[in-house]
Amino acid sequence: MTAPVFDRMAIIGIGLIGSSLARAVRAEGLARSIVCSDANPEHAARAKALGIVDEATTDPAEAAAGADLVMLCVPIGAYGSVAATIAPALKPGAILTDVGSVKQAVIEAVTPHLPEGVHFVPGHPLAGTEKSGPDSGFAALFPGRWCILTPLPGTDDTATRTVADLWRACGMTVERLEPDHHDRVLAITSHLPHLIAYTIVGTATDLEDHLRHEVIKYSASGFRDFTRIAGSDPTMWRDVFLNNREAVLDCLQRFTEDLTALQRAIRRGEGDVLFDLFTRTRAIRKGVQDARQA
Amino acid sequence: MTAPVFDRMAIIGIGLIGSSLARAVRAEGLARSIVCSDANPEHAARAKALGIVDEATTDPAEAAAGADLVMLCVPIGAYGSVAATIAPALKPGAILTDVGSVKQAVIEAVTPHLPEGVHFVPGHPLAGTEKSGPDSGFAALFPGRWCILTPLPGTDDTATRTVADLWRACGMTVERLEPDHHDRVLAITSHLPHLIAYTIVGTATDLEDHLRHEVIKYSASGFRDFTRIAGSDPTMWRDVFLNNREAVLDCLQRFTEDLTALQRAIRRGEGDVLFDLFTRTRAIRKGVQDARQA
Repeated sequence: MTAPVFDRMAIIGIGLIGSSLARAVRAEGLARSIVCSDANPEHAARAKALGIVDEATTDPAEAAAGADLVMLCVPIGAYGSVAATIAPALKPGAILTDVGSVKQAVIEAVTPHLPEGVHFVPGHPLAGTEKSGPDSGFAALFPGRWCILTPLPGTDDTATRTVADLWRACGMTVERLEPDHHDRVLAITSHLPHLIAYTIVGTATDLEDHLRHEVIKYSASGFRDFTRIAGSDPTMWRDVFLNNREAVLDCLQRFTEDLTALQRAIRRGEGDVLFDLFTRTRAIRKGVQDARQA
Repeated sequence: MTAPVFDRMAIIGIGLIGSSLARAVRAEGLARSIVCSDANPEHAARAKALGIVDEATTDPAEAAAGADLVMLCVPIGAYGSVAATIAPALKPGAILTDVGSVKQAVIEAVTPHLPEGVHFVPGHPLAGTEKSGPDSGFAALFPGRWCILTPLPGTDDTATRTVADLWRACGMTVERLEPDHHDRVLAITSHLPHLIAYTIVGTATDLEDHLRHEVIKYSASGFRDFTRIAGSDPTMWRDVFLNNREAVLDCLQRFTEDLTALQRAIRRGEGDVLFDLFTRTRAIRKGVQDARQA
């Protein structure tokens, strides 16, 4: 692998992921110039003040103009309008790529606006925290993590390799998946866990006042992990659920059936049903640890 | 507070919590002699070999005989038979206490066997990991965590203070709660999160082979946190659910209703419902962080 060096990289949306990428690109010298845009003028100004970008604007077309690589880091719900806005500004031969947590919906939103001669390489770095905004990013977010690219049948292979090399230069291990397969895998590994965490923390907020106070006080031992996940960005996650609806609803249906079976076992005092499941899940935990993702 | 020093402390069950306590008691010089028993002869022998106890046996009555403090650290389902076994061996004035995650069921299981002149102080240190066995314990498990005591109306206050001082000497902050209140708070902060984590990891194990492989491979981003929780001890957790049945089923019912409402919002594309909840849960996360439990 040779690390790519872009003349002008545009990062559209300078939140947690966008600002982490800007920092990594800076640290690794992967672009001669980094330009960002953000719909929030305070975030754009902050990115410039932090020195992680060379130029910052609120206009995505201005940022994308003349860039040889444009990285979409906005919530998925904004992809269609952002793609329409930047399309006329994209230079021939430019690579357009993204970091969105859903891939089929992203492809559907972007491709209608794609100008001739621009290469679109959908991507998803599996990295993040529950924090938001340009101050929360850090270059060390990426090393040791997976990045999944979901190129389309017609995608230029050189463009795909360039995007892969960019993420590898940031420390990631890059894999390719079909878009629909990506969406099913992420529905269970990421989207459903987030939905459940949001739900249980929501259930706790609806408790009587004195109980809620104690739930927060004694939040160690399980609940705390859920509050961390449920502290994630509301806009980003609303858009994920609305845009990976089928896969999420399918997972959720399976989960609910399994939970109902456990509820029944508890009500009937069937300890062996519980014990058998808990033994199986412990084996899965071991698999996750052996896969060195723990 | 004056740290208590026991002549002979008996730890019944030398797993994660029991062996962590033995290490802390050793480190702080809280007992002249530490004796343990474990139903698993390998665990008993291992505790002795590790040097964290002075004597080890498989007979809880032998361990409890002559002890001035007896700490039950066995799965809750074993409390009744262990209490019956050790009762004749308990010396007058001895303190019997425990670390069980449920308190009402523990009180019901133990009190019928309690000899005259023995002080029973139900307790629950809110500390743990997903690991099991005497090798997994460590003295640093306790500092900075809460310990909840649920003394009964007739409990000798000096005995309660002695148990509180023991946990404080291990670094914990001690609070008192009513047993039924403890069980409701823990149902939502600990038991329901564990049940949900077990369920979702179980749902993932039932996926088609190739999907399951990728779920493990890409387990970062949410699922991994659940596998950690779902790697917890199967016997301990089976007993928790069977013994805090009413409170767990009540929480579970509320959770299921809330999840169904979210499922409906996703199916109908009601982004505002999702956004509102995710904004509320982010505020709860902030509350947890402000409570310094994050």
